[in-house]
Amino acid sequence: MRRGAGRARYAKEDVLSILDAGLIAHVGVSTSDGPLVLPMAYGHDGECLFLHGAVANHLLGTGAGQEVCVTVTCLDGLVMARTPFHNSMNYRSALIRGTARRVDEDERKGYALKLVTDHVVENWDSGRPPSPSDLRKTLVLEVPLTEASAKIRNGDPVDEPQDIAGPWWAGVVPVVTRFGSPFASADLTADSSPPNPVIALSGLTPEERCNRKGG
Amino acid sequence: MRRGAGRARYAKEDVLSILDAGLIAHVGVSTSDGPLVLPMAYGHDGECLFLHGAVANHLLGTGAGQEVCVTVTCLDGLVMARTPFHNSMNYRSALIRGTARRVDEDERKGYALKLVTDHVVENWDSGRPPSPSDLRKTLVLEVPLTEASAKIRNGDPVDEPQDIAGPWWAGVVPVVTRFGSPFASADLTADSSPPNPVIALSGLTPEERCNRKGG
Repeated sequence: MRRGAGRARYAKEDVLSILDAGLIAHVGVSTSDGPLVLPMAYGHDGECLFLHGAVANHLLGTGAGQEVCVTVTCLDGLVMARTPFHNSMNYRSALIRGTARRVDEDERKGYALKLVTDHVVENWDSGRPPSPSDLRKTLVLEVPLTEASAKIRNGDPVDEPQDIAGPWWAGVVPVVTRFGSPFASADLTADSSPPNPVIALSGLTPEERCNRKGG
Repeated sequence: MRRGAGRARYAKEDVLSILDAGLIAHVGVSTSDGPLVLPMAYGHDGECLFLHGAVANHLLGTGAGQEVCVTVTCLDGLVMARTPFHNSMNYRSALIRGTARRVDEDERKGYALKLVTDHVVENWDSGRPPSPSDLRKTLVLEVPLTEASAKIRNGDPVDEPQDIAGPWWAGVVPVVTRFGSPFASADLTADSSPPNPVIALSGLTPEERCNRKGG
């Protein structure tokens, strides 16, 4: 995305609102084979960001005790300028860099896993609680939110002054993500409905889901 | 996302169909301050993936001649298991690792920039053509698609056998992204309409846009 089109921001509320809205993070670590970037679920509590995976997870194992970069991006629109040179995208992106600490304390591990689960939709308390074996099989990393920044681009294309009067169209195509209606697993034998927070997602955007959670 | 939930695939057609559908890549480089991951536009021709930015772009400058990782992820659904331990997401992700080469030849640079522009929507030919100065201000990297893999998870949650008969709900919440209707830039003075490929995006998913392009 074009330099100058976005604006770097360091206000913590910008970072947190992007982390709240996002559903997946792209997590980068440095390996002996070069950088590795994978999509992961995440959660946060305003102070730390949490990642989880299987104990054998290569990326998380590599990242433990090392520098990592966690990037969460929400795409809002395609920006079509009068010349493709000024095409861009409207987006909100949060970037967190820091040393990832492996969480080994049971209580904090449970705390982190509930945050990661409930980040997407609050359903930690409506399922079968995790067993001690589930916890043992799970690797959790935490990254402090101290080194975080946000970049937000919105609005119209920015064209060259001499192009404005030209014959070309310019504008924005919105990109909107919404949750659909939940459908039950084929092996569902229980006479149960989706938890209320899951039902309530239908038709919402990821941003609307945050407002609902807050309320 | 959970180990075992996705399935690694190496078929080139899987990689290409994810690259076709995606709109942004998360690009990782190793810097002296640790890994850095940023969202970027991209294009590809089946053999190479192309990235572009301003000549002063820190990530692209760092990546030139170095190992990079380019990850494109499409999110399809929230997978809600009977226990949060087995929650997951349905997604398609393509991962390309390799040495990024800086493209300096004018002809190939133009070729790459048209691919990056038209990847989103075919509008390279409907705007003001790039000037020699535009090209000089743009840095282009290419990464061969030789070291590429795809990971795709779809379908129902996979629960523990002993949990299936439990009282808990399990299922999937679809996540769907669509393009909205284009709106004109506030400074548009030309008596012009959006190019046909832009008008045709309205209401489509990113995947449907690929099928349209192909046809």
